[in-house]
Amino acid sequence: MADTDPLVIFTPSGKRGRVAPGTKVLDAARSLGVDLDSVCGRRGVCSKCQVAPSFGAHAKHGITVAEDALSPVNAVEERYDRVRGLKPGRRLGCQAEILGDVVIDVPPESQVHKQVVRKRAEVRDIVLDPAVRLHYVEVPEPDMHSATGDLERLLAALKAEMGLEALGFDGALLPSLQKTLRTGKWAVTAAIHRDGPPTVIGLWPGFHEAAFGLAVDIGSTTIAGHLTDLASGEVVASSGLMNPQIRYGEDVMSRVSHAMMNEGGAAEMTAAVREGLNGLIATLVGAAGIAAGDILDSTFVMNPVMHHLFLGLDPYELGQAPFALATGAAQRLRAADLGLALAPAARVYILPLIAGHVGADAAAVALSEAPHKSDELVLVVDVGTNAEILLGDKTGVLACSSPTGPAFEGAQISAGQRAAPGAIERVEIDPVTREPRFQVIGSDLWSDDPGFAEAIAGTGLTGICGSGIIEVMAEMRMAGIVDAKGLIGTAEETGTPRCIADGRTQAYVLWAGDDAHPRITVTNGDIRAIQMAKAALYAGARLLMDKRGVDHVDRVVLAGAFGAHISARHAMVLGMIPDVPLDKVASAGNAAGTGARIALLNIGARAEIERVVGEIEKVETAIEPRFQEHFVAATALPNSADPFTGLRALVPLPEPHFSGGGAGEEGGRRRRRKRD
Amino acid sequence: MADTDPLVIFTPSGKRGRVAPGTKVLDAARSLGVDLDSVCGRRGVCSKCQVAPSFGAHAKHGITVAEDALSPVNAVEERYDRVRGLKPGRRLGCQAEILGDVVIDVPPESQVHKQVVRKRAEVRDIVLDPAVRLHYVEVPEPDMHSATGDLERLLAALKAEMGLEALGFDGALLPSLQKTLRTGKWAVTAAIHRDGPPTVIGLWPGFHEAAFGLAVDIGSTTIAGHLTDLASGEVVASSGLMNPQIRYGEDVMSRVSHAMMNEGGAAEMTAAVREGLNGLIATLVGAAGIAAGDILDSTFVMNPVMHHLFLGLDPYELGQAPFALATGAAQRLRAADLGLALAPAARVYILPLIAGHVGADAAAVALSEAPHKSDELVLVVDVGTNAEILLGDKTGVLACSSPTGPAFEGAQISAGQRAAPGAIERVEIDPVTREPRFQVIGSDLWSDDPGFAEAIAGTGLTGICGSGIIEVMAEMRMAGIVDAKGLIGTAEETGTPRCIADGRTQAYVLWAGDDAHPRITVTNGDIRAIQMAKAALYAGARLLMDKRGVDHVDRVVLAGAFGAHISARHAMVLGMIPDVPLDKVASAGNAAGTGARIALLNIGARAEIERVVGEIEKVETAIEPRFQEHFVAATALPNSADPFTGLRALVPLPEPHFSGGGAGEEGGRRRRRKRD
Repeated sequence: MADTDPLVIFTPSGKRGRVAPGTKVLDAARSLGVDLDSVCGRRGVCSKCQVAPSFGAHAKHGITVAEDALSPVNAVEERYDRVRGLKPGRRLGCQAEILGDVVIDVPPESQVHKQVVRKRAEVRDIVLDPAVRLHYVEVPEPDMHSATGDLERLLAALKAEMGLEALGFDGALLPSLQKTLRTGKWAVTAAIHRDGPPTVIGLWPGFHEAAFGLAVDIGSTTIAGHLTDLASGEVVASSGLMNPQIRYGEDVMSRVSHAMMNEGGAAEMTAAVREGLNGLIATLVGAAGIAAGDILDSTFVMNPVMHHLFLGLDPYELGQAPFALATGAAQRLRAADLGLALAPAARVYILPLIAGHVGADAAAVALSEAPHKSDELVLVVDVGTNAEILLGDKTGVLACSSPTGPAFEGAQISAGQRAAPGAIERVEIDPVTREPRFQVIGSDLWSDDPGFAEAIAGTGLTGICGSGIIEVMAEMRMAGIVDAKGLIGTAEETGTPRCIADGRTQAYVLWAGDDAHPRITVTNGDIRAIQMAKAALYAGARLLMDKRGVDHVDRVVLAGAFGAHISARHAMVLGMIPDVPLDKVASAGNAAGTGARIALLNIGARAEIERVVGEIEKVETAIEPRFQEHFVAATALPNSADPFTGLRALVPLPEPHFSGGGAGEEGGRRRRRKRD
Repeated sequence: MADTDPLVIFTPSGKRGRVAPGTKVLDAARSLGVDLDSVCGRRGVCSKCQVAPSFGAHAKHGITVAEDALSPVNAVEERYDRVRGLKPGRRLGCQAEILGDVVIDVPPESQVHKQVVRKRAEVRDIVLDPAVRLHYVEVPEPDMHSATGDLERLLAALKAEMGLEALGFDGALLPSLQKTLRTGKWAVTAAIHRDGPPTVIGLWPGFHEAAFGLAVDIGSTTIAGHLTDLASGEVVASSGLMNPQIRYGEDVMSRVSHAMMNEGGAAEMTAAVREGLNGLIATLVGAAGIAAGDILDSTFVMNPVMHHLFLGLDPYELGQAPFALATGAAQRLRAADLGLALAPAARVYILPLIAGHVGADAAAVALSEAPHKSDELVLVVDVGTNAEILLGDKTGVLACSSPTGPAFEGAQISAGQRAAPGAIERVEIDPVTREPRFQVIGSDLWSDDPGFAEAIAGTGLTGICGSGIIEVMAEMRMAGIVDAKGLIGTAEETGTPRCIADGRTQAYVLWAGDDAHPRITVTNGDIRAIQMAKAALYAGARLLMDKRGVDHVDRVVLAGAFGAHISARHAMVLGMIPDVPLDKVASAGNAAGTGARIALLNIGARAEIERVVGEIEKVETAIEPRFQEHFVAATALPNSADPFTGLRALVPLPEPHFSGGGAGEEGGRRRRRKRD
């Protein structure tokens, strides 16, 4: 371009260059590599290319922009403004021509690859680049002189506009094709699915803007769905439901058993989860006030057993060594083939499984937490009935699954319950008086605050949830009520009447009960259940550290609902996770769900996680003798000799050795792994 | 290779070359470009590579083959011979090693691209190269130390053996995958579909040889299916049934009307034809004694309305100008998606439609008769309710459809009936006495032969079929009973009492009737109906000749069931088809069905017909004024002034001009086209 040609500067990117006078803003943006959207083929219909020119002096850029730096508003822009409204000062990039030096701001909503901001500082934002994109197109009418099908003309028009060699068309759209074209007077909006051979998977008469996606985490217990606007990345509705398969078994292995013991059992469970998902979809569609037919894409994560049952595969082989998956690869399917009530040609993407016990949920956690991009060595733990554990950094990632059992979810605990109003979730025990105080879910009051009685009249006081169990047990250890082997001392040994005899062992009375609420104790059986669970978790992490040849990690990420509520300090007191400074422990919340949403919003993330999963070193705890060793060693509760960096100064751990009960022996015995 | 290396000569190809001593016969064949099959990856399981070495002196090739020119029969060959049997003298090409000069015959069954011979001299044989091929493979067992899915290991093994970059797997096979692998002890046979991205569409434990395909012609009236062995090209069973859609309307336009007038009418007809097809499949499977699960591929041809109804598309647009097809492109679908009871992942290929009135059946005729490869200018006519007409040679092909109506099928004819036992199919009228004689379907006797009365006691004598009508009308014309305008003369004018008054016109008594069989006459209305039909047919052909700029063609092919039975001489007397020497008229039989079978047996034929259809010049008779002109001109019956090359000498046509009836006027009036 000549030096006398207009200079155009795009903000916020700062990209600049000279263009021939009369160049359309959209063309200038494209030629300078500026991220400016457009879906209507420059027809002034979609307004995705709208920009905000700035007139006057721009000291920063050393230019002054004249009022006539752009061509006057033309008829197409006037029509758009009249019909759909254009913000003051905005121009359509496909219409406005550059006549003089100009500074043009591209507002976030006009960027093709918008950033979807995530709250935590240590994770990257999501770049919006979904697998499905809408494209408005005008189609030539049929003509007896040249006999071509409506479909062939539609595809030719789309291919020409999008510069595609080949473009498929989902057969589910064929029956309505002719009517859609005629209703739209030969102008239609097509949804193009680009994950695989480009294919039309949606078609509406005229200009259509709505396109949604669904990200789903199918847990053994809970199914959570997030309905997301594919244009903005915004979650427009979230909802969860109990996995309806629960009636066939609480955990995955009892569901595998159900499939093995009952003819048609697997098919029953497949039908149940799909039906549940359709209920969830209906709820989300209702909550967001959108049409199910506008949900064009979906991503799913789940553990291997949920994966097989969702796909209609018998999980039989997952119930026995060598735990062979039917398939672990990422799946690209049609929602209709899974019986899901989304748009007729909507797609399903299931993230890859990592191994026979490490699922797509763990892959999604890896996508969300990106250990493979971390400079620091990070341990990511997703705690559930099985704990999925990732350890790695830029140089490589290892993964394993460890059978923690359901104790962390409140099962196998005498007063255990799910996290719900009325459950004890926070506990402190005075190390001197050994008197407890606690908080229940649904109230901010501590149990020794005035008004607590009124508060629990509202919330109830019914038991202890998983995070509460971790806290009470760690506090009991720190207060010298429990010894390193996990034995609760007697009233004499501990000096508190809250320690009471409970069969051959002792129990600690956390809440004495009142007329309306039962007594809540922590039994030695509860302690043992948590010892088993935390030992399995720690042994898994430790095994990966051995494989990696390290004896510490730089940081720890706790994922999952349990991980979100757990107190890192108490978890380290118990020896659930390796010791790191407290500020190096982060909670990632529902990282599996976040990973599903990333795969929904960014097509490149799918290739990324498939590559990463292929590169992850899978470690099968069941065949690693060192896992057993670590497990046995990890049943003990750490004492003050442990390198408790952040904690030792906090509380000097007493070193009692109690007499009662047989936990020492039992703790040393390897609990039978359910999946063996 | 060194001059001292063994010389190997393959017959019948004659390909020869020197190979290193110890080279396997299969490898030698591959390196010399000899067509030698193998599906089991050289495991000595499939025997597809078996060859017949010839020992002793070979004067023709100038070599003598020693007994030790090949390595001795090895353990693999012994096992195969013991278990499955090997013909005497045969060797397995994947086992036998070339040690000295040798002549090796590749028997036809060992060729990958066998020739399937067609009976007619003027058409090419079919080269066997179906879209589906079987491949035997051994799959590594799962291993806890390297967690990969069964599917991923299967695909990796197949890709390595077949040298494929990517290989898909049909989801319908996933539920049975794990069991199949284990039943086969990690050896399975996979069916690979190669028309599109290569995909596994069948899987059996161990070695499996059966693979079948189905070629179907869905006519408006009749559905015909041919079950074909994909390994040999042999038709193992054929069957036909009435199209169950007939209850919604006899012809395509009445079915379009049914769809337009009745909510859900199109869906009803879609369900009817698919149900009918499943009945046909069951019949074929039973007749051939095979498993439906071994039918892996299928091809379909049909007219555009049958096409849309089969695919579940409303044919509404085909009932009105501009006769816009929803899609005309070739379709590659899954049989399950069309509700067809073939193998779970079987495929469907539907040949491309040519235009709004020229269907995939016409495309199949083009594939079978290959006008685009003809040196001579050939006219191909497929006569049905609509006649599809192709005209062309190597330099280009034109196509049109002409609305002949159902007269040629015996409808609209007073004594007309379908071609079935008891129908008159051959007629001669003595030009002097004007006395007729005829043959009926089901008997070889002429009506003036002794024993005819007994014969029709068996067959019945119930009416005249389409080819019989052509003959009687042409004979009436040649005998001077009908004049050029199509009027039947009175008894006085013709001198035969067989001409009787019939309202305002005359009728000719072909059969006076007896106690058991009704009188059969040819009325002036019958003559008029055939005049309309043949004029439409001729006008279509003539229009294409105009477009091509010619006034004669080199040869004529009559396709379809009607075309197979029609007498070319009589058709030319009537002026149905342009005049060519009689030996230049061929009957192609069910060319549409043959085209479907070619597309089933040769994957390259699919690309060929898609290219040819794209290049065919489509002519829409409805908007061509010259079609009307030709139609009006063609209602007349040719007289002796016509250039009847082969016929003029045969019979000097009398030139009567009869008085009775108003056929002259009516014949000139354009019959309303049903589709207008």
